[in-house]
Amino acid sequence: MNGKVIKVHARDNVAVVVSDHGLTAGSEVIEGVVLLEAVPQAQKIALSDIPGDGAIIRYGEIIGRAESFIAKGSWIKENNIKLPAPPNLMDLPIATRKSISAPLAESYEFQGYKNSDGSVGTRNLLGIMTSVQCVAGFAQHIARQVTDKLLPDFPHVDGVVPINHAYGCGVAINAPDAIIPIRSLQNLMTNPNFGGELLLIGLGCEKLEPQRLISAHPGSNFDLFCLQDSSGGFKEMVRRSMELAVEKLERLNKRRRQTCPVSDLVIGVQCGGSDALSGITANPAVGFVTDTIVSSGGTVLFSEVSEVRDAVHLLTQRAADAAVGEALVREMEWYDRYLERGDADRSANPTPGNKQGGLSNIVEKSLGSIIKSGNSPIADVLSHGEKLRKKGLVFAATPANDFVCGTQQLASGISLQIFTTGRGTPYNLSIAPVIKVSSRTVLKEKWPDLIDLDAGQIISRKRTIEEIGRELFELVLGVASGEIITAADKLGLYNDLCVFNPAPIT
Amino acid sequence: MNGKVIKVHARDNVAVVVSDHGLTAGSEVIEGVVLLEAVPQAQKIALSDIPGDGAIIRYGEIIGRAESFIAKGSWIKENNIKLPAPPNLMDLPIATRKSISAPLAESYEFQGYKNSDGSVGTRNLLGIMTSVQCVAGFAQHIARQVTDKLLPDFPHVDGVVPINHAYGCGVAINAPDAIIPIRSLQNLMTNPNFGGELLLIGLGCEKLEPQRLISAHPGSNFDLFCLQDSSGGFKEMVRRSMELAVEKLERLNKRRRQTCPVSDLVIGVQCGGSDALSGITANPAVGFVTDTIVSSGGTVLFSEVSEVRDAVHLLTQRAADAAVGEALVREMEWYDRYLERGDADRSANPTPGNKQGGLSNIVEKSLGSIIKSGNSPIADVLSHGEKLRKKGLVFAATPANDFVCGTQQLASGISLQIFTTGRGTPYNLSIAPVIKVSSRTVLKEKWPDLIDLDAGQIISRKRTIEEIGRELFELVLGVASGEIITAADKLGLYNDLCVFNPAPIT
Repeated sequence: MNGKVIKVHARDNVAVVVSDHGLTAGSEVIEGVVLLEAVPQAQKIALSDIPGDGAIIRYGEIIGRAESFIAKGSWIKENNIKLPAPPNLMDLPIATRKSISAPLAESYEFQGYKNSDGSVGTRNLLGIMTSVQCVAGFAQHIARQVTDKLLPDFPHVDGVVPINHAYGCGVAINAPDAIIPIRSLQNLMTNPNFGGELLLIGLGCEKLEPQRLISAHPGSNFDLFCLQDSSGGFKEMVRRSMELAVEKLERLNKRRRQTCPVSDLVIGVQCGGSDALSGITANPAVGFVTDTIVSSGGTVLFSEVSEVRDAVHLLTQRAADAAVGEALVREMEWYDRYLERGDADRSANPTPGNKQGGLSNIVEKSLGSIIKSGNSPIADVLSHGEKLRKKGLVFAATPANDFVCGTQQLASGISLQIFTTGRGTPYNLSIAPVIKVSSRTVLKEKWPDLIDLDAGQIISRKRTIEEIGRELFELVLGVASGEIITAADKLGLYNDLCVFNPAPIT
Repeated sequence: MNGKVIKVHARDNVAVVVSDHGLTAGSEVIEGVVLLEAVPQAQKIALSDIPGDGAIIRYGEIIGRAESFIAKGSWIKENNIKLPAPPNLMDLPIATRKSISAPLAESYEFQGYKNSDGSVGTRNLLGIMTSVQCVAGFAQHIARQVTDKLLPDFPHVDGVVPINHAYGCGVAINAPDAIIPIRSLQNLMTNPNFGGELLLIGLGCEKLEPQRLISAHPGSNFDLFCLQDSSGGFKEMVRRSMELAVEKLERLNKRRRQTCPVSDLVIGVQCGGSDALSGITANPAVGFVTDTIVSSGGTVLFSEVSEVRDAVHLLTQRAADAAVGEALVREMEWYDRYLERGDADRSANPTPGNKQGGLSNIVEKSLGSIIKSGNSPIADVLSHGEKLRKKGLVFAATPANDFVCGTQQLASGISLQIFTTGRGTPYNLSIAPVIKVSSRTVLKEKWPDLIDLDAGQIISRKRTIEEIGRELFELVLGVASGEIITAADKLGLYNDLCVFNPAPIT
């Protein structure tokens, strides 16, 4: 790095422009490489002549082949890169890499809420969940009423969260893929931030019978209130819901944070609105945090099948054993078929914004995306919406869609998420705090109150990945302990959950 | 009808129990038919012996065949009815029925908001729409701020509506079926209740580029604000959005209701949480309103493909011409394939609640559902999310899922909806008022403040379908004119939109 461009890997024949305002024609970016044209920030330039059909290499991997000759010093544009075939799932190196992460000498702690099932929350929330979208308006109303009228009397409860979603009825509930939304909802109920309590509001005639949600958790402290069981109209529905809420608030209010080792922490990592700098700044800093938490015995979930598919050959090597590697391949196959069924393929990702941000295709995006998973071995693979089974680094299969990924990671049991962004997004979750990390300093300057940490400093202030990674890790501990409130939580911006339903609606 | 049971059609060999608390064994329900067992309200009884494989007939149509012998006076339970094959789409009577609806002598009027595109609204709303779910939290925040801080100064504006949805990014935007969510959102923008104004909030890197929404409406008064174009953080984003909102509120505030003929009215009809009485009380009353509006030159949309499929042979006859009939068949074929692709079929509808309510299968549910369309000829057929093209009775293809149907009818251009329910639901839309009609008096008694009109009076108070139909029609005119506020609007209960995306997410 020289402040102008970054070349990530010795084998690369491209570099990415890092100067905030791009580079002008005639700039010498690396000894002997003079720009033939002006190139904006985050775009790629050719470090050598690349013949037609020649490999274009970034991260030491072929991200595509040149459509036509590319002269040294040119801007490599998206439409001059042929998308290569994805890695062949029948022929991958599985569990070939020895574990490289050793337990850390230092032991880290945070202040968390211990749950009876062994999980630990970072927040103490009253969840008001719906079995069906029909009652979403009612659940919103109750959440507002509880927040305004009851919550002030229960100072140890951090908030009241309506858990709305669009599933529950008008869906083919017996179709094979319906298991995905159903288990996602069942598992959301036991997110560590709800402390084993939950008020479930149902209607009474929905296809997703509320009992099916409740009975997935025998012996739980979940209360169910079905509107169709209520006489006395809206007023009585509100009275009864408030009564149930008080009981829960009383129990939740007795809880206190306790010192917990980082091995109790379960976080998710995700990226959205990525650019070509994401894979150089923000995602490597997250990778450092991932390795730190995993080395401390904690758990990190990474996800986003369509942003893993083209780099899966790098991940199968890191599988803890053959079964984990094969599970990873199965998740890729399932998604390939799912996309095919809808006449789409992996090229449906990236977005126009990703491309403006210099990510030419899904191969380049994927290579940058998986860096969030650090270098740790992959201990387990979860299917869509499955609950966490093992500690360590876990691949939780989800779509890359920000809100679906967030929802499924919450279902799997994360109590905090790190979200990296290059283009910028006000993304937030209501069930778990989200730490937002920018890949470039310009974004942090534009949106100072929406970004928690600027990993762009790795370029703009020449700080190391480890320095920013350590800062991010401290931030994770502070937010997990309730000592630091995230930018989006301060502003009170929340998105609804988005449950993945690959089955038909009716 | 004798207060105990209702037999709808002369050919029927079943009747439905209408007594509020069911009937006991030994009751003589019709001369010569004595109940062999106790039967709850809305369930069916056999009026004659039905041999194994014999036809079970309701509404004059075969709703199924007996699995085994059914004795006269028995309760006909769901599991004793074999589901027949659906009507063969290759062999339907098309446009065979002469129009039976004549223009009414009387001319009806309402007080509406005339729009420059010729449409007429029933409300004068400021819509705040999102191009992508990422900005939903922000749009909610702005809607609250505008409502609290600005709206009091604009007394002629009826409300501020955030138009949130889960589409826009993380989706296969070039898949063939993506046209459905895209055109649904494009058409939602011109719903008559927005008066040609709209504030569109985008992010900037989303797959559904905001310009694609705006450019669908050349010359429109739609303002676009993309968060990624904003510097100065959240505070500046709010300031700019509020500034744009003021401009729109100033224009909307100048609008006044004007006397309009019913031929300017466009309403949607829908049912949800149906029971076996829906087809006897509420839906026939809606059918009366449909015929009244259509005879007056107005427009009624009915929908719900999976609740039309098994009665489509009765509808193709009513097509205004062969092209309309063929379009109806095409919509059935598309949905058959869509369900098949997800390993489901039409039996995925009805719900457990429908069945408890006496609707044994999708054939019986469909025969009761289509009654909402009255007897008018079908003037046109719209594909999912298409904008209205013709006046009269229009079949707008939608899933039966309440919220998707509501969203698509709003996209097609309804400014008011009638919603019938037997089991009860707090369903409501924020963009257009929803009049809720109960199929049974017990529901109205249980939920007095959630139901606008009790069509159960057709049974409980022996009022005629026409009487209740006229009352409902008066209610439609009152609500459309802003003189009557619906039950759910009084309570402020609203559900989010649910955009139908049959294409994959990524």
